[in-house]
Amino acid sequence: MSDPFMETLGLKVLSLGPGEAVVEGRVEKAHLNLHGTGHGGFLYALADSAFALASNSRGPAVALSTRMDYFRPVRAGERVRAVAQEVFLSRRTATYRVDVLRLGEDGPERVALFTGTVYRLEVKDVPTGARDSAQGEA
Amino acid sequence: MSDPFMETLGLKVLSLGPGEAVVEGRVEKAHLNLHGTGHGGFLYALADSAFALASNSRGPAVALSTRMDYFRPVRAGERVRAVAQEVFLSRRTATYRVDVLRLGEDGPERVALFTGTVYRLEVKDVPTGARDSAQGEA
Amino acid sequence: MSDPFMETLGLKVLSLGPGEAVVEGRVEKAHLNLHGTGHGGFLYALADSAFALASNSRGPAVALSTRMDYFRPVRAGERVRAVAQEVFLSRRTATYRVDVLRLGEDGPERVALFTGTVYRLEVKDVPTGARDSAQGEA
Amino acid sequence: MSDPFMETLGLKVLSLGPGEAVVEGRVEKAHLNLHGTGHGGFLYALADSAFALASNSRGPAVALSTRMDYFRPVRAGERVRAVAQEVFLSRRTATYRVDVLRLGEDGPERVALFTGTVYRLEVKDVPTGARDSAQGEA
Repeated sequence: MSDPFMETLGLKVLSLGPGEAVVEGRVEKAHLNLHGTGHGGFLYALADSAFALASNSRGPAVALSTRMDYFRPVRAGERVRAVAQEVFLSRRTATYRVDVLRLGEDGPERVALFTGTVYRLEVKDVPTGARDSAQGEA
Repeated sequence: MSDPFMETLGLKVLSLGPGEAVVEGRVEKAHLNLHGTGHGGFLYALADSAFALASNSRGPAVALSTRMDYFRPVRAGERVRAVAQEVFLSRRTATYRVDVLRLGEDGPERVALFTGTVYRLEVKDVPTGARDSAQGEA
Repeated sequence: MSDPFMETLGLKVLSLGPGEAVVEGRVEKAHLNLHGTGHGGFLYALADSAFALASNSRGPAVALSTRMDYFRPVRAGERVRAVAQEVFLSRRTATYRVDVLRLGEDGPERVALFTGTVYRLEVKDVPTGARDSAQGEA
Repeated sequence: MSDPFMETLGLKVLSLGPGEAVVEGRVEKAHLNLHGTGHGGFLYALADSAFALASNSRGPAVALSTRMDYFRPVRAGERVRAVAQEVFLSRRTATYRVDVLRLGEDGPERVALFTGTVYRLEVKDVPTGARDSAQGEA
């Protein structure tokens, strides 16, 4: 289920379900920036890949707009993971949140937060089981 | 704990704690747009107020950058609620996620998602109990 | 061309054309936050109103996702202006950039930058004269 | 002036000045997604590289928050360019806008718009010549 760009970056799909996906990678020297830490574009590509897999699990969709908040740098050799969850799904658009984690010795630590909205190319009914995580919240 | 703009819009603080806040309001006719639904700026002001309260609970902070994803329109007469949670806190910046809910007869339903990052005006140590919700996740 | 929420906030349309709009207002005491400066939600409402007018000039459209970057605080009594310009227009979506300016004695000064994307409710052909400001740039 | 990740993706710096940078690349098969078009993460990495160069031209800075709006797909073989301009510069933060263009036979065409804010690691005075492009605008 990976695509050419994910292969180029060594990203692997750990799990994939309706509206969700988990992707993992390793920060290599080829992924560093001028500060010697993981490039913002590398961490984004990790998150974006999980986002693309999660959103396309509902039928073909294209990204419209995304946001990335960077919290902590990552270092060469560290393993990183992106966990994409569906926040909203309608017939024409859908929104996902992706947590980007560093898998250190002390357990996972969040290093970035990604939010993304897609446009769905085929008008579809929303599956009955689609998550609307606001239900029952608050 | 409300400010002049919140009073102007009839917004009330329901709860306030370290790094979190809940604000509620009611969509009045004075808050509608040209389509006759709640103005995007009104829903944003609701979310932004919860964001400001949650972030300033950690010491003085100013907003740097926010994102708002709109999912569903709200109607005049509906009650709406913003629930702000801390996603990340460091000495200089912090990031919050705010769920915006419509409080209908069938329970709360998410109508928008807000993400915001602040710059903290006084350098502070991060409280030991500060949430880092990635711990133990994934 | 103003709507109820704009009237509530005292916002006025200065100009309106295909894919563009200019809206002005004045920071009143009723628009302040806890720091005693203009509320982030007020400045956003100003920008969002210009965005809504500019995007609906192309036919009915609803906001999907927005971003607001805050640069400088505004004070009670200051006049502020939002200038919305079309960055992209297609049959289904469109994106606008809104500069938020403070109109001081030394000329306009940017206090915030807004970016917003809409979903267009009626499938339309893109007008031949629609701006694509990348043409000829760079 | 390129970094390891830019080299991995074949990205080259075309120009670099105070607060601005232009970076170019070519969409290779190794950069495609599952739809067979350029991966969103590749276009983002292009824009993010121009953003990093432009912001670090003012002294060391790290990305806090970014937004990417996608307009059109790009194809294998196409040349793409990112043009980063400074929108705001203060002692502690700065914001950049990056236009992402496809360089086709009919001239440049915008395919995405990137907005990014950095935190500046060393407190610096703002250079007298720093752009504040709102001056004289509107």
